[in-house]
Amino acid sequence: MNGAESLVHTLLKSGVDTCFANPGTSEMHYVAALDRVPGMRCVLGLFEGVVTGAADGYARMAGKPAATLLHCGPGLANGLANLHNARRANTPIVNIPGDQATYHRPLDAPLTADTEGWARGVSAWVRTATSSRTVGADAAAAVAAARTSPGQIATLILPSDTSWDEGGEVAEALPVPPAAASAPSQIDEPARVLRQGGAGVLLLLSGTGLSERGLAYAHRIAVHTGCRVMAGGSNAKTARGQGRLSVDRVPYVVDAAVKALSGTRHLILAGAKKPVTFFAYPGKVQTSVPPDAELHVLARPEQDIVDALGRLAEAIGAPKTPGPDNGVRPEPGRGAITPESVAATLGALMPEGAVIADESVTFGRGFFPLTKAAPPHDWLNVTGGAIGGGPPLATGAAIGAPGRRVINLQADGSAMYTVQSLWTQARERLDVTTILLSNRKYAILLGELANVGANPGRTALDMLDLGNPDINWVQLANSMGVEGARADNAETLADLLGHSLRRNGPFLIELLT
Amino acid sequence: MNGAESLVHTLLKSGVDTCFANPGTSEMHYVAALDRVPGMRCVLGLFEGVVTGAADGYARMAGKPAATLLHCGPGLANGLANLHNARRANTPIVNIPGDQATYHRPLDAPLTADTEGWARGVSAWVRTATSSRTVGADAAAAVAAARTSPGQIATLILPSDTSWDEGGEVAEALPVPPAAASAPSQIDEPARVLRQGGAGVLLLLSGTGLSERGLAYAHRIAVHTGCRVMAGGSNAKTARGQGRLSVDRVPYVVDAAVKALSGTRHLILAGAKKPVTFFAYPGKVQTSVPPDAELHVLARPEQDIVDALGRLAEAIGAPKTPGPDNGVRPEPGRGAITPESVAATLGALMPEGAVIADESVTFGRGFFPLTKAAPPHDWLNVTGGAIGGGPPLATGAAIGAPGRRVINLQADGSAMYTVQSLWTQARERLDVTTILLSNRKYAILLGELANVGANPGRTALDMLDLGNPDINWVQLANSMGVEGARADNAETLADLLGHSLRRNGPFLIELLT
Repeated sequence: MNGAESLVHTLLKSGVDTCFANPGTSEMHYVAALDRVPGMRCVLGLFEGVVTGAADGYARMAGKPAATLLHCGPGLANGLANLHNARRANTPIVNIPGDQATYHRPLDAPLTADTEGWARGVSAWVRTATSSRTVGADAAAAVAAARTSPGQIATLILPSDTSWDEGGEVAEALPVPPAAASAPSQIDEPARVLRQGGAGVLLLLSGTGLSERGLAYAHRIAVHTGCRVMAGGSNAKTARGQGRLSVDRVPYVVDAAVKALSGTRHLILAGAKKPVTFFAYPGKVQTSVPPDAELHVLARPEQDIVDALGRLAEAIGAPKTPGPDNGVRPEPGRGAITPESVAATLGALMPEGAVIADESVTFGRGFFPLTKAAPPHDWLNVTGGAIGGGPPLATGAAIGAPGRRVINLQADGSAMYTVQSLWTQARERLDVTTILLSNRKYAILLGELANVGANPGRTALDMLDLGNPDINWVQLANSMGVEGARADNAETLADLLGHSLRRNGPFLIELLT
Repeated sequence: MNGAESLVHTLLKSGVDTCFANPGTSEMHYVAALDRVPGMRCVLGLFEGVVTGAADGYARMAGKPAATLLHCGPGLANGLANLHNARRANTPIVNIPGDQATYHRPLDAPLTADTEGWARGVSAWVRTATSSRTVGADAAAAVAAARTSPGQIATLILPSDTSWDEGGEVAEALPVPPAAASAPSQIDEPARVLRQGGAGVLLLLSGTGLSERGLAYAHRIAVHTGCRVMAGGSNAKTARGQGRLSVDRVPYVVDAAVKALSGTRHLILAGAKKPVTFFAYPGKVQTSVPPDAELHVLARPEQDIVDALGRLAEAIGAPKTPGPDNGVRPEPGRGAITPESVAATLGALMPEGAVIADESVTFGRGFFPLTKAAPPHDWLNVTGGAIGGGPPLATGAAIGAPGRRVINLQADGSAMYTVQSLWTQARERLDVTTILLSNRKYAILLGELANVGANPGRTALDMLDLGNPDINWVQLANSMGVEGARADNAETLADLLGHSLRRNGPFLIELLT
C-alpha cells in the first residue's frame, strides 16, 4: 500500500467520507488512491475557492469535516479566502494540498511556493508529511485536530513522494475530547446578574448557542428574566423559523450597531466574541458595546455553549417554556423587487428544512423579520468577510444536507468571485436555488465611499460599478449547465421560486433591481 | 493632503500611471484619491486573480510596473496565484493591498488576516505603511524595489488610517540602479568554450536574452560557432517571427527534455536557470541536463543579459549577420481542429505586432515551428505554473501594448480559474482574441495519471473531466459582454480569426476539439 492509499483508508476510518477536489500533477497518486479505495465521495470544483468554500458548507450541515484535495502552492492560495471564512465559522476541515516531492523542493521548480507559510494564516494545525510510512498517522492527527472544539482547519501538506512511496500504514481514528464545560464561575456571574432582572442585560449568542437547543435555553432565560437576546454579526449556522426564538444579529453598520446595543449594562457572551466593528472608520467607535457595559463570558467559542446555557437557565430557575410563536407567515411579496418583497416571498415559500446560504450583503440585511414565521430552517452566513463565500457554501451545504433545499441569497458582485460553483451544482445535480441580486454595482462600497465623505467622480464610480457591460446571469448560469430565469417583480420571483422548489437540481433566478 | 493622495501623486511621479483594482471597504480612501488625483488609469477586475495577472501582462508589454489595488487579507490571497506567476516572470509590480487601520488590527475583526505573511511568499519587498506622513516615501521605495533588475514584486500594505489621515507628503522618484554587468570571468569562460567550436554547446536564453536584441546576438554566436540555442521552459516574453532566431523551449515532458538536451557538454546560461523538471516523478531524473555537462553562467537573471550576449559575441569575434530567414508563412490549416491546423492558421493570419498570451498547456506545445515565419510578434508564457494566468495576462497585455492585437491561446480548464477576465476585456474594449481550446478535460492530468501507471476508474476520470455538463464558452463570453463563436474545423477558425482581427474589441473563438 502506498502513502496515498493509507491516507484515504485512514480518512475513511476517521469518518471523513467526502472529498472536495481540484487536483494537479503533484496530486495524481492521491487521485489514483481515491479511485482505488472505495467509499469516498469526490466532488470536483473548477476553482479552489469553490473547493474550500464547499468544504465549509458541507461541514456546517453534516456536522463533520470533509477533506479537500488542492494543488500545491498557488492552488492552496486560491483556496485561502474561503478557508478564512471557514476559520471564522469554526468549521472543521481536513485541508490537503499536495506539494513537490520532498527531494524536489530544494530545486525551486517553477511551481514551488511557500505552501506551509500560506497555510498557516488559516489553519490551527499544519503538518507537512515526511514519509509514506507516517502519512496515515498524520491523517488521523489531522482529523482529530479538525474535530477539536469548536472545529478547526487542519492542513496536511502532502509532498508527492509521501503519496507514491510504498509502506503506507493505515492509522486508527484518534479520540477527540469533547468541548470543555464552562467553569462554575462562568455560570455563577451571569446568573447573579440575571437574578437581579433582565433589564439592561444582553445575551449574545454564536456557535452552537444558535442551534435549536441553544436557542430554546436562551428563550427560557429571556422569558424568565426579560433580558434581550441577540446573535453575533455573522454566524456559521442559525436555527430559525416557527417555534424558534428569532434573534437579530448585531448590525454591520456601525451607527446601527451602537444603537442596537445601547442601554446594555451587562453583556453575556455565549459562544460570541465581544462585538467589534468590521472596519475602523475615522472618528467612529471600534466597538458597539457601551463603554460602561460589564462583560461576562458564559462560554468561550470552544466551550460547550449549549451546556452553559442550560446550566444558566437552571441556575436562575427559568422554567421550561414552549417555543415562541413567531406569528403568521407573510404573503408573498408584490410589485417591485425590494428587500422587503424578496424577504416576504422567501418567508412565504421556503420549504421546511430549507438551508439559506446568505451572501446577500447590503440587500439582505433586513430579511430576518419576514422569515421568522417560515417553517424551521437553517441560515448560514459568510463569516469572515471574504467575498465569494456564498455560492460554494450553498454547493457544499447541499451535499452535506441531502434532501433539503438550499437557497443561496447572493449579491452579484460577490458571486463573480466563485462563479464556477454553478458548474459543480449542475454536475452533482444539487438542489440549490440561487436568488441572484443583480444590482450591477458594489452597493456596499458605494455606502462606504459615502462614509468617507467623498463626492465620487467618474473614476471612483467606475470602480464600484458592475454595469458596462451588464452581466447576463441567466446566460452565465446556462453556460455552466444551470437553468435560470429573470424576475423583475415579486410575482415572477414567487413563480420561479415555486417552480424551482418543485423540481430537482439547481436553478438560478436573476433579480433585476 | 491625506496619505492616499500622497500615495497616488508619488506613484505618478515615479512613472506608475496604471492601476488594476478590485477595492473593498478598507481601500475607500485610496479609491477616493484615485478619483481626485488626475492621471492614473484605473482598470477594474471582478476577481483579484484578474487584477494581479493583468498587472503582470501589462508590465511585460509596457516595460514598467502597474500598481494594484487589492482588498485586505483574503483579497490579496485571491491574487497570490498570479503574483506567483509574475514573480517567476521577474515582472515588476507595485502591489498595494489595503488593510485594517493600524489601531483596529489588534481587535481581530472578522476580515483581519495575516496580510504580510501571505504577501511574503511572492514579494521581494514587503512593507506595511505606518503613517500618512511616510506613505509617500513608502510608495517611492516600492516603485524602486519593483523596478530593480530583473523586476520584482514590491508589496506595500496600506492600513486604512495611513490613507485617510492628513499630513501626506509626496515623495520624489528614487533612482533605480541599472542591471549589473556580468563579471569578465562570466564572459571569458563561455568564450573560451565557444572558441573551441559550438558542438556540444547549448546557449540557454531567458529574460531579456529573448528580446529582439538578445536573440540577434545569440544568432550571431550560433552562426559563428554552430552552437545550439534554446529558451528556458517558460519565459516572460519572447520576440518571435520573421527575421528573429526561432528558439525552442526546453520541453515540459521529462523524457522529451532529456532528449532535447542530450549531448550537451557545455550549458551556457544567459538569464536562464539550470533546467529542472516541473515536478519529480518516481524513477525519473530531476533535471534534463546531462550529468557530465559543464555549466557556465554568462548572466544571472538580474544581470544585464543583452550586454553579456553582446560581449560574448565580440569576445569570440562573431561578425554581424542578417537576421535568419524563417521560411515562408504557412497556409491556414484545413480540416479538423488539431494542434497543427490551429498553429498553421495562427502562423498564417496573425498580424504584425501581435502579442500571444499562451496558456494552451498540452494543446499548444508544438506551436512554435508553424509560427516562426509569421510577422514579428511577442509570445508570453505563463511562467510559474499557477493555473489561470492566460486570460488576465492577455487583458493586461492589451492595456500595456495599445494598438496591438493580443491573441490568448487558452485551455478550457485553466480559463475557468480567471474567467472574469472576459468582463474586463469587454468593459475596456480591449483588442483580445481568445482562442479557447475546449477539450473538456484536464488533458495534462490524464497524461500525468498515465505517468503514474494508473488504469483510471470512474472516480479518477470524473476528477479530470470537464464535461458533464459541457461548458458553453460562447454563451459564457456573451454573458460578460464578449462576442464569440464556435469553430469545429480549421476553415471556420480562419474565418473567425480573420473576422476578429478586422474589428476592435474582444472576441472569443471556442474550438471544439
